[in-house]
Amino acid sequence: MARVSQEHLDARRRQILDGAARCFARDGFHGTSMQDVLKEVGLSAGAVYRYFTGKEDLIAAIAGEAVGGVRLAFERAARVSPPPTPDVLIGRVVRTLFGEEAGGRGGLDRRAYAGLIVQVWSETLRSERLAATLGEAYAGLRISWAELVGVYRESGMLAAEVPDEDIARTLIATAQGFITQLAMFGDATPELLESGLRGLMSMDLQRVS
Amino acid sequence: MARVSQEHLDARRRQILDGAARCFARDGFHGTSMQDVLKEVGLSAGAVYRYFTGKEDLIAAIAGEAVGGVRLAFERAARVSPPPTPDVLIGRVVRTLFGEEAGGRGGLDRRAYAGLIVQVWSETLRSERLAATLGEAYAGLRISWAELVGVYRESGMLAAEVPDEDIARTLIATAQGFITQLAMFGDATPELLESGLRGLMSMDLQRVS
Repeated sequence: MARVSQEHLDARRRQILDGAARCFARDGFHGTSMQDVLKEVGLSAGAVYRYFTGKEDLIAAIAGEAVGGVRLAFERAARVSPPPTPDVLIGRVVRTLFGEEAGGRGGLDRRAYAGLIVQVWSETLRSERLAATLGEAYAGLRISWAELVGVYRESGMLAAEVPDEDIARTLIATAQGFITQLAMFGDATPELLESGLRGLMSMDLQRVS
Repeated sequence: MARVSQEHLDARRRQILDGAARCFARDGFHGTSMQDVLKEVGLSAGAVYRYFTGKEDLIAAIAGEAVGGVRLAFERAARVSPPPTPDVLIGRVVRTLFGEEAGGRGGLDRRAYAGLIVQVWSETLRSERLAATLGEAYAGLRISWAELVGVYRESGMLAAEVPDEDIARTLIATAQGFITQLAMFGDATPELLESGLRGLMSMDLQRVS
């Protein structure tokens, strides 16, 4: 066998993952066979099985990347000091993942990428391996976003006596709901979520009995 | 064939749907065969196929019920006049669906029911029939919740100049994110979402540069 560079190996692995992601986004994890993936990437079984042991392995790799991408977007947004308001932060999270300029989606458009994430959620219910990956990422997010809410509280902008973690999880929930809407209806934009959050935060609870 | 009452037919149909829902919640739509459903409900193929033409038909019926249940919970909450604050309303929506007293889940516990809904979302990406059902329900929700936001605005409690529909969709997104978290981690409670929303709405955007 000819010696190949690490760059070549990496590029080949990337090519397989991107092709599999296209198949999965189009036909679902269960509606895609390894044969479909081989056809999509234009490689032989021997070439692909050098990198991945099978479909489950491909699903795990792609789900791991998707979970990692979402986690990174949340963590980067939370790291700004002093933090902008939550609407701006959540706007950044979804723009990083689904904005016009967003990369790292392996050639998938934003709706297809959102659909892939929803599929990962669904698959997580069946796969202990995926559940562990997602659970770990989410546990980290809860902590870093609860710390962020603590910063808002210290700055005096948070009036209600509710646990910081509840607010953190509700903010994360808005992004998860956004992903759901984008996957299913295609018309959710980062601007919509940002403006919706700004509207919610502008509400004056004192004016309601 | 002996004559059977409509009550008997309805009860038998319900028995099949509930058994299928248990199978789907446990093993996923794709991991469940008609054979599994027959075993779960303890009926013959002949008895089951009198009601449903096959697995796709069962999935459509169960997904339709789940979508209808979510829609009804949102619509009932939006119908109260004058409306309580959004945190209370969204709390009611998720309590109707996932509270201790909530019925209509065919014997599924709240986490399993949330998981079934996430599976329906995922399946929607592959099925035009399901996508149409969900799209119609969601279009109705967007309208009734945007009207509700209009009521808040008229009462003077909404300061920001953002589209009512953005706020409505963001509120719906919090419930969708809640369902995602409940399905995946099992520890999301209606109280958490209610308190998180109350916290968010108590934030004073003026105090941040």
